[in-house]
Amino acid sequence: MPPKHPLRVVLVAPRNPLNIGAAARAMSNFGCTELRLVNPYDVAFREARSAVKAHKVLEKAEEYPSLADAVADCELVVGTTSIGHRALEHPLRRLELGGKVIARKLARAPVALLFGSEKFGLSNDDMSHCHWLMRIPTRDAHASMNLGQAVAVCLYEIVRNPVAAKAEPEIRRAARAGDLERITAMLGEILAQSGYVHERVEGSTELKLRRLIRRTKLNAHDAEVWLGILRQIRWKLLS
Amino acid sequence: MPPKHPLRVVLVAPRNPLNIGAAARAMSNFGCTELRLVNPYDVAFREARSAVKAHKVLEKAEEYPSLADAVADCELVVGTTSIGHRALEHPLRRLELGGKVIARKLARAPVALLFGSEKFGLSNDDMSHCHWLMRIPTRDAHASMNLGQAVAVCLYEIVRNPVAAKAEPEIRRAARAGDLERITAMLGEILAQSGYVHERVEGSTELKLRRLIRRTKLNAHDAEVWLGILRQIRWKLLS
Repeated sequence: MPPKHPLRVVLVAPRNPLNIGAAARAMSNFGCTELRLVNPYDVAFREARSAVKAHKVLEKAEEYPSLADAVADCELVVGTTSIGHRALEHPLRRLELGGKVIARKLARAPVALLFGSEKFGLSNDDMSHCHWLMRIPTRDAHASMNLGQAVAVCLYEIVRNPVAAKAEPEIRRAARAGDLERITAMLGEILAQSGYVHERVEGSTELKLRRLIRRTKLNAHDAEVWLGILRQIRWKLLS
Repeated sequence: MPPKHPLRVVLVAPRNPLNIGAAARAMSNFGCTELRLVNPYDVAFREARSAVKAHKVLEKAEEYPSLADAVADCELVVGTTSIGHRALEHPLRRLELGGKVIARKLARAPVALLFGSEKFGLSNDDMSHCHWLMRIPTRDAHASMNLGQAVAVCLYEIVRNPVAAKAEPEIRRAARAGDLERITAMLGEILAQSGYVHERVEGSTELKLRRLIRRTKLNAHDAEVWLGILRQIRWKLLS
């Protein structure tokens, strides 16, 4: 369910065309279309745009002369940073929480999410435009992420559906008891033919086999496959 | 908190050295060190390894002749796919759920997470080694992610801390009521000096100012700054 207001992804002074392209691709993957660039390295922007696999997101990306202009229409401005421990003038939220706050705000108003240049990140001046900062929970020893990857991870957290973490996957229809019983019977027959089952213990073996087959939790399709396999084995044993 | 068992990230037939490097970087960011490659394009692997910014993860990456060998020591094998609707022989979990299942399993046993080649993804043969498949919740119209970005998003979901989504950030100590009152008083004085406040309405204005200042929710540091600003203005007005 797309939020009412699109998220504005703002790249400040990006330098590498591959990164600009990667950010656009991640945006397209997660349904974000509003890419804004502040003071991009001109050659990089042109190169990214003219790439064979350039995305629509990149075609309609807008360039702004200043960060203030790029975020002027937003009610919430959030900067990303890889710095976890330095004393910052801003409240710092981990992505797990910040993503939720952004998702909620997008239901009511436009939000800008800022990413700094590959080399230096956001400057103190850039950060002064932000209401708060957000950090991806990377290792302290290697905190700085690739720009395109950072964009992908942030957008995933913002668009992901918390309810989906509880939903069990669609699994094929389970095999019916009748199919399981046919398998049990045929396997019993085969084992009797092979000399695995002695007449004396036949009854208890049947119960063991029945439980053994039930524990496999076969789905309907696989039950058919197993029946085919067992039929073939039985045919071979009897021929 | 690192899980007891390291996650094995397995790239099957990767072709682009930049993607292999990006996967290794994301792994390093999120504290995963076990990179395994099955049938990588030789030139790509050598090029990625010799890159100036190659990560330790890449240096100790291991090459395997077959997928079966690469996952032999794992109790759970999960394949990633961008296909959401094709009838698959395997249960398909969204990343939001699958990531949780993997994180839980890692507490007890080694797990392998498989990524297919950039162009074709995992083959049916590759998938037959998997217990289940996992899909990143991308748009249907543009489901396929860049390899390095897909690795980053999956690892983020597996290592992220659900508890952090509830923790409020550390915010600076709020200003004490006494500071707010000093600001209120000084602002009142300035407004009186500037002719903003008429004697007739002085009392009600004081209350309005007090509420106005309380609504700013100033922190202790910013309260000091505001006091300095107001002191300066008052000095100017009186000189």
